[in-house]
Amino acid sequence: MNKDKMRIIPLGGLGEVGKNMMVYEYEDDILIVDTGMMFPESDMLGVDYIIPDFNYLMDKINRVRGIVLTHGHEDHVGALSHVLESINAPIYATPLTRGLAEVKLARAGLLQKADLRTVQAGDTVQIASFKVDFFHVCHSIPDGVGLGIETPAGLVVHSGDYKFDHTPVDNWPSDYARLASFSRRGVLALLSDSTNAERAGWTPSEKVIDSALDMVFRKAPGRIIIATFASLISRMQQAANAAIHYGRKLAFVGPSMTDNLKMARKLGYLDIPDDLMVPLDQALAMKDKEVVLMCTGAQGEPASILGRLSTGTNRMFDLKPGDTVLLSSHPIPGNEEAVYKTINRLFQRGAEVIYEAVAPVHVSGHASQEEMKLLMHLVRPRYFIPIHGELRMLRQHAKLAEDVGILRENIAVVQNGTVIEVSEAGMQIGERLPGGYVFVNGSVVEDMDRSVMRERENLARDGAVSVSAVISGGRVRSVAVQTKGVNLTDEAENGLRTRLYELSGATQAAAEQLIRTYIYNDLRRRPALFVTIHE
Amino acid sequence: MNKDKMRIIPLGGLGEVGKNMMVYEYEDDILIVDTGMMFPESDMLGVDYIIPDFNYLMDKINRVRGIVLTHGHEDHVGALSHVLESINAPIYATPLTRGLAEVKLARAGLLQKADLRTVQAGDTVQIASFKVDFFHVCHSIPDGVGLGIETPAGLVVHSGDYKFDHTPVDNWPSDYARLASFSRRGVLALLSDSTNAERAGWTPSEKVIDSALDMVFRKAPGRIIIATFASLISRMQQAANAAIHYGRKLAFVGPSMTDNLKMARKLGYLDIPDDLMVPLDQALAMKDKEVVLMCTGAQGEPASILGRLSTGTNRMFDLKPGDTVLLSSHPIPGNEEAVYKTINRLFQRGAEVIYEAVAPVHVSGHASQEEMKLLMHLVRPRYFIPIHGELRMLRQHAKLAEDVGILRENIAVVQNGTVIEVSEAGMQIGERLPGGYVFVNGSVVEDMDRSVMRERENLARDGAVSVSAVISGGRVRSVAVQTKGVNLTDEAENGLRTRLYELSGATQAAAEQLIRTYIYNDLRRRPALFVTIHE
Repeated sequence: MNKDKMRIIPLGGLGEVGKNMMVYEYEDDILIVDTGMMFPESDMLGVDYIIPDFNYLMDKINRVRGIVLTHGHEDHVGALSHVLESINAPIYATPLTRGLAEVKLARAGLLQKADLRTVQAGDTVQIASFKVDFFHVCHSIPDGVGLGIETPAGLVVHSGDYKFDHTPVDNWPSDYARLASFSRRGVLALLSDSTNAERAGWTPSEKVIDSALDMVFRKAPGRIIIATFASLISRMQQAANAAIHYGRKLAFVGPSMTDNLKMARKLGYLDIPDDLMVPLDQALAMKDKEVVLMCTGAQGEPASILGRLSTGTNRMFDLKPGDTVLLSSHPIPGNEEAVYKTINRLFQRGAEVIYEAVAPVHVSGHASQEEMKLLMHLVRPRYFIPIHGELRMLRQHAKLAEDVGILRENIAVVQNGTVIEVSEAGMQIGERLPGGYVFVNGSVVEDMDRSVMRERENLARDGAVSVSAVISGGRVRSVAVQTKGVNLTDEAENGLRTRLYELSGATQAAAEQLIRTYIYNDLRRRPALFVTIHE
Repeated sequence: MNKDKMRIIPLGGLGEVGKNMMVYEYEDDILIVDTGMMFPESDMLGVDYIIPDFNYLMDKINRVRGIVLTHGHEDHVGALSHVLESINAPIYATPLTRGLAEVKLARAGLLQKADLRTVQAGDTVQIASFKVDFFHVCHSIPDGVGLGIETPAGLVVHSGDYKFDHTPVDNWPSDYARLASFSRRGVLALLSDSTNAERAGWTPSEKVIDSALDMVFRKAPGRIIIATFASLISRMQQAANAAIHYGRKLAFVGPSMTDNLKMARKLGYLDIPDDLMVPLDQALAMKDKEVVLMCTGAQGEPASILGRLSTGTNRMFDLKPGDTVLLSSHPIPGNEEAVYKTINRLFQRGAEVIYEAVAPVHVSGHASQEEMKLLMHLVRPRYFIPIHGELRMLRQHAKLAEDVGILRENIAVVQNGTVIEVSEAGMQIGERLPGGYVFVNGSVVEDMDRSVMRERENLARDGAVSVSAVISGGRVRSVAVQTKGVNLTDEAENGLRTRLYELSGATQAAAEQLIRTYIYNDLRRRPALFVTIHE
């Protein structure tokens, strides 16, 4: 490879580009940025989650010099244990991100094997040919960083998930000075977060949530139950602040919430006095007006605490009249139906429910259009590669880049798997690598192709019927019929038996044909059919 | 029943209250308002659509004096043929709504049987004890009406789907004068559309779409393809106006679009000159800059024209560079993923795509909060019953009613199936009727309960395995294994065979136990198992 070129490859399938895993290559050195997971689309039946296909790296694992994690969200760290099973390179992360990754690796039994190295926002670390500047960015989790990645080919800036919040809850704004210093050094390419590229203006500060919480706390006649993501550390701080102000005690409910709380407090990312917190059983024994419960389930997950409260199946406690439930979240695309169903059920069970559509109880963690343009002006890149978004968002982001004066031919809107080469001499868009998604069921990487999923779609739509029979001496002797996901009446089942028993000179083929025709005619639909004829 | 009481019952399941079918009863007379269908939720596997359960009416069909249709959308008329199979009462509808209903009834072979009666907005019709005033309302389909329903018990106002558009495309604003006249007569109860109760302000006029279309037409370098609902007659008019202005010809593509176009032109709801329209083949032969194509598929339906264009599988024509695709729609809840996937694919295939998130190419057909409050002030009801919405929307609508001064005890937020009695003396909320949804597959009402759907969920998640064997003389003789939606390796399948053949003193129970344990251990998942042992 040419000495003045850097290769950039976002890995993954047709989802958000470069969200989950990016590869930066210079000569023989490879740097991985993020190792995240995705949630399956609705037609990916039986898939629990998806990890990027990193088959491209399998013959180059000895060239991987480091894995950098930008922040602790699942879509950026959730595939770490899968990657470490094949690639053992040092992992660089800020303290909170490292803490979250450690919890994950410990569960997978990989913590001993992993070479974790703490970096601080503001640090510069040389990782083989890559001089990496970690700069702080605001996002919906503390301790997020973007990266300046410098090689002899030039300086590339990778934004990570970011927003420009002037009044963040942790009082730590994005590092404008470092961003501006990049432009003084000259930036070859900017790769930045396109999530909100369709959204005009500037994403509201997390601060606006304080006023919404204040209004809710002021009026709530009984208990307040706040549901959010377990990783939304700043929301824990905001709930704690409101609880102190209104003289309520705070109980954190559920293992993921309490694990993250403990870790974030230990590392100093949360300032919550000991005497504010009470265990759940104590909270349940207190007066309703003196209690705040904080739990997970704001995405409508049926097995979460909020999900179980909404269906009246939570073991430790139930909703009661006077409860105010606050969902501090925005539905992840595809989750809308589940979230709104949960909200309806909570109302049905007698709670007052406060959610994003009726009060500003959540803000996005991603930059909107004006922030995106600001980033471009701060960094002043020659080439622009929108990442972290579906194609439609990348296109909008590319338009914004044109608006601020980046030449159209210097903007690359690509899909995952595309190899981009950048250098002072130009930018080349290469071919797409084969591969894309790897499906995971449970924690097992599955050999599951699309044809298996098409079969599952048929099963889901029309159910399955099994008919097994024995033929001897030209007569059908024994018939067993079973159904799942479809109803065959007793009458229809007996009719089928009779027809089979009456078949004279019965052959395997004739019996099978009779069964198929009979089932389709009777049900007027096409269930998956298992026909077995023993001779 | 008491002479001064009216009974009001919204029918249906846990979905939007009273959206699809409402029952008004006075003494022995029953009036049905709307007969609509719903789309299935994502966990209703194998269901094509849902109709309200009207079992309540089955022993009272001779008391049904009329069916009133408020407008021609599927969620208000889509179950008409199912209802007419049991209940033959006169159907009252405005001309366009009647036209749309006739198309539907003709397809079901019920047009001869149906007693259709045309009413005009502004008409007053006595239907048994019910004096029904039809008043015009703006909505996203022309010729919509709301109803004043008067009996000796009092006057009830039913809004239907409405908005207060001051500049509608058909220049026919909602009938404020009639609404105000109701308040002079004294209104016992208002039942009104809650769809946008979470939305502050006033829904934008359809007029704003003209400017967005203008911008798109001004810049489009090639063909313009507009996708919308086949029933969105006003969007056809707007597209025609823009086409005239920019010197393009217009081709309507697809049977539902062209059928509705013809009917709406014949009835005078569209003003499109003959020479503006060209057949599709002619349009395809013209210069790109001279053409607009209008088609369906704005909800991401894979089988629609836009859906097929997005996957490159449309037969008559394909996308080409320079095409501008405009989606004039808002994703129906639950359709977001499909719509955005379609948009991404259209971009991928080289089209420029304009959609709601990036330009005002669609507006809601439902009133927002300020309009809702205006309706309450115009009508000044004693009792208020929010309808047409999920529970969360009804709750917000109820809060708005309290804000404008309706007493909390005079507001009834109910679920479908709840019997409400209103009279000068008061409002009583009765028990919920049993039943709810009726599932339809193809066009067949299905006997399908939730347990069948749970089985389908299992099939969808883990697939199905069928193992059939014959035992004779204490030995397993013949083993057949089949799978669908899950992969069993040849090695695993052979292992199972070997284990079964080795089973000595084999019984049905022992063989079945062996199979179940083996499959679960091998796959580490729980597919639906069909095990048949012939002895």
